[in-house]
Amino acid sequence: MTGYTATVTVRLKHGVLDPEAETTQQALERLGFELEDLRAADRFEVDLEAESVDAASERASEMAERLLANPTIHDYDVEVDER
Amino acid sequence: MTGYTATVTVRLKHGVLDPEAETTQQALERLGFELEDLRAADRFEVDLEAESVDAASERASEMAERLLANPTIHDYDVEVDER
Repeated sequence: MTGYTATVTVRLKHGVLDPEAETTQQALERLGFELEDLRAADRFEVDLEAESVDAASERASEMAERLLANPTIHDYDVEVDER
Repeated sequence: MTGYTATVTVRLKHGVLDPEAETTQQALERLGFELEDLRAADRFEVDLEAESVDAASERASEMAERLLANPTIHDYDVEVDER
């Protein structure tokens, strides 16, 4: 078993409204920053032990599907690094 | 001017309690997943126009310092890609 860190990034699907990101963008603009768009996402870094990179990645995807992301409104991606 | 996407990742400093991450970890464990640790972070993807990668990165760092991160409890890092 090897130690891995799986990074799961959960973002809203294209077309789903994100009032929090919109408010953040407006606040930055009010401070004088020029920007074209701002998107917010959640990032989870999970430390786990697994037999291989593939096994760690599969387990992290299952975590995303069962708890970390809501498949109706979220997309997610998983990246795995050895610790 | 070129279009860039700056990704700002904001995480709690080491030692700052994160009850949300702890609850998420416990929920995953209750579902039968084995994991050693879980950390949560916020990720902001900012589309902006700038003269260079360095200029885009500097502007995104300023956004982090002035609004996206709270320097008392957060660390942040910035990554810039051309769009």
